[in-house]
Amino acid sequence: MTLLIKNARLLDMIGDEPNVKDRDILIRDNKIAEIKENINETEEIGKIIDAKKMIVMPGLVNTHTHLAMSVFRGYKDDRSLMDWLNNAIFPVEDKFEKQDFYWNSYLSCLEMIRSGTTTCNDMYFGMEEIVPAIEESGIRAIVSWCITDDSVRDKPEQTKKYAKLFNNKESRIRVYTSAHAPYTCKPETVKLVVDLAKDLNTGIHLHLSETVDETNIIKTKYSKTSTEYFKDFNVFDVPVVLAHGIYLSDSDIEILKNVKGGISHNPISNCKLASGICDVTKLRKNGIKVGLGTDGTGSTTTLDLFEEMKLTAYLQKIKYMNSEIIKAWDILKMATIEGAEVLGLQDEIGTLEVGKKADIIIVDTGDLIPENDVATNLVYAVNGNNVVTTIIDGKVIMENRKLLNSSFEKVKEEVIKNAKRVL
Amino acid sequence: MTLLIKNARLLDMIGDEPNVKDRDILIRDNKIAEIKENINETEEIGKIIDAKKMIVMPGLVNTHTHLAMSVFRGYKDDRSLMDWLNNAIFPVEDKFEKQDFYWNSYLSCLEMIRSGTTTCNDMYFGMEEIVPAIEESGIRAIVSWCITDDSVRDKPEQTKKYAKLFNNKESRIRVYTSAHAPYTCKPETVKLVVDLAKDLNTGIHLHLSETVDETNIIKTKYSKTSTEYFKDFNVFDVPVVLAHGIYLSDSDIEILKNVKGGISHNPISNCKLASGICDVTKLRKNGIKVGLGTDGTGSTTTLDLFEEMKLTAYLQKIKYMNSEIIKAWDILKMATIEGAEVLGLQDEIGTLEVGKKADIIIVDTGDLIPENDVATNLVYAVNGNNVVTTIIDGKVIMENRKLLNSSFEKVKEEVIKNAKRVL
Repeated sequence: MTLLIKNARLLDMIGDEPNVKDRDILIRDNKIAEIKENINETEEIGKIIDAKKMIVMPGLVNTHTHLAMSVFRGYKDDRSLMDWLNNAIFPVEDKFEKQDFYWNSYLSCLEMIRSGTTTCNDMYFGMEEIVPAIEESGIRAIVSWCITDDSVRDKPEQTKKYAKLFNNKESRIRVYTSAHAPYTCKPETVKLVVDLAKDLNTGIHLHLSETVDETNIIKTKYSKTSTEYFKDFNVFDVPVVLAHGIYLSDSDIEILKNVKGGISHNPISNCKLASGICDVTKLRKNGIKVGLGTDGTGSTTTLDLFEEMKLTAYLQKIKYMNSEIIKAWDILKMATIEGAEVLGLQDEIGTLEVGKKADIIIVDTGDLIPENDVATNLVYAVNGNNVVTTIIDGKVIMENRKLLNSSFEKVKEEVIKNAKRVL
Repeated sequence: MTLLIKNARLLDMIGDEPNVKDRDILIRDNKIAEIKENINETEEIGKIIDAKKMIVMPGLVNTHTHLAMSVFRGYKDDRSLMDWLNNAIFPVEDKFEKQDFYWNSYLSCLEMIRSGTTTCNDMYFGMEEIVPAIEESGIRAIVSWCITDDSVRDKPEQTKKYAKLFNNKESRIRVYTSAHAPYTCKPETVKLVVDLAKDLNTGIHLHLSETVDETNIIKTKYSKTSTEYFKDFNVFDVPVVLAHGIYLSDSDIEILKNVKGGISHNPISNCKLASGICDVTKLRKNGIKVGLGTDGTGSTTTLDLFEEMKLTAYLQKIKYMNSEIIKAWDILKMATIEGAEVLGLQDEIGTLEVGKKADIIIVDTGDLIPENDVATNLVYAVNGNNVVTTIIDGKVIMENRKLLNSSFEKVKEEVIKNAKRVL
């Protein structure tokens, strides 16, 4: 199948500053085959999309999600983390049945596709239902079973089964392992997950240094930081995605300098739950890759990664009381190629280059005039509603705001129906 | 002219928590005439709008704008305030001609209308051009000539002229006076503006305590805080809108407790320019009214007040490291009735009640399911693009995303043309 995008204002996300070029883009199967000024409309071409001089850029990369939590949107909101978890989230999660995992995850995938995210990195339970939802939605994803001391059960075996099915270069879905967090995984659990990751030649998705409470618990229990705790069980021998990374000491940063993967920064969740502000600036200065994530819908209300971009910038500028500390272009990089690096997918996605997978969004910035700075418009003024077309793995998933392969109304209907049972 | 809104999910913004009711709303001339469960479609009714079970709520109130600055969107962005002002803003403002004030302001008005703002409070130069732009756009506004030591000239006379034209209860436009800021207005200038306000029986729009620099300058010059400086020249004898209010001491707060009007909180501008975080929580606990504002497009990139709502919540939660410190409902109040109180318009707008002016927006939250909390959806997940219909002063200004009386394309074209001359 061959797809041609005409009249693109290409923002390929390569280089040190925004450089928008008028280009056509030829996609063959799931890859970008050609980018040049004028590509002829030969007979080979199956479909032509006219970008109408809109911005054409890499799809966004959401490095930390809990897809099946969409049902918690605004549920018992604006309260403290522990109250929220114990009295709102956990009792409901216990009621989840197969259809909840499936439809809730499907909804999250469609929300992301509709707001320009083409790749996500998920951690949750119920992979048997979540993976089919991801497959049908068309999104690219890394998935992992969330392992804690209390819920190891058959997850290592399931992880192995799914890793064998999906972990190859042409697959849109990949499988990571997951140890939930330092405070929910004792040393044996962490070791088990590390061994599993090594065995499967894959990575680990973890929560790390999210709250002061976590820092205190781990310090009391092990006389270590969370990072030291993970290091001592060789977590960093394999690629990692470390969600949050708010409370990291200088020596933690020394340890993390050499990891494969990086940090997932989730500013909305971190603010809404009053967890703290991740020092993105310091991490990146130390060469640690930082991608952006939304966390679950329960803590963010929306999965629109453009909103995370805005807040990432605002928080760093105000934390440092320096408006120059981070620029719109840095933020766009974090949401695309740097996120891809955090997920170890930088050779496949994150920029628009010949040979890469065709994960592409078309964004209408036409009302944001005069266009003095395309990066600042995209970060500070655009939101997910401005994304008109989403292409993932060479397939047009949304065109002119219309999902081509999924019924958003049907998915919403099922989630609402199931919500009535569990909430 | 009579207008009927059918099938509203009414969020009237009255009470201590969200209470959505199925209602019809009858508008006669510019006022809300009736709100009840089923209003008959009599012959009297000129137009019927079917709200299709969408949220119908008061239009948003933007308490601090510089309308004519839309041309600065993203212009030399991500730099420090003084560099930005001296090397980006001021040299361009010097080139402004009549058509710049007019078209730039018109663009800002339309952006606000399209994102659900029905009232703004503007401070700038060029009232002869800005007022006609406001009039034609259909937005409700308070306007003021920005007076500084260097630019008094004929502004008091002009302010008088416009105040006489517009300052009556039925007018959609009102005129305030304005002293720009403590550091640009010497005592004589402040006194002049206060006398003018008293003379015209109107209020003053000022910048107050925006930066550490300002605090230091005023302390050095007068051995006072900015608030004390203004108090000593009787600024607080008249209604005030105080933009920013970031660096306020406890004794400043004591002074401000009794003002008529209140603070305009502009979190995006304050973050982007690294000015600081206004302690909204403390101000409100002390009974000071706090509305939301966008400041000019140059410092925010967008005039979407929903974005200011989000950031207001995030900043307070993270400042206090307490997720319960401010709730979505508080934020919605600040964006509506509390903003109206800051502008002294609480008897006319800010809630949906019989007898009030009909400033109403219809918001499509249909994709934000399940709807566990309507306030949290509106604050944390909705943005201006979700506003489908905007009614101001009883007139339908935008219906189903289409502006009825203005050509957005024409306005954009003119701004782009003028931008080429001045930038």
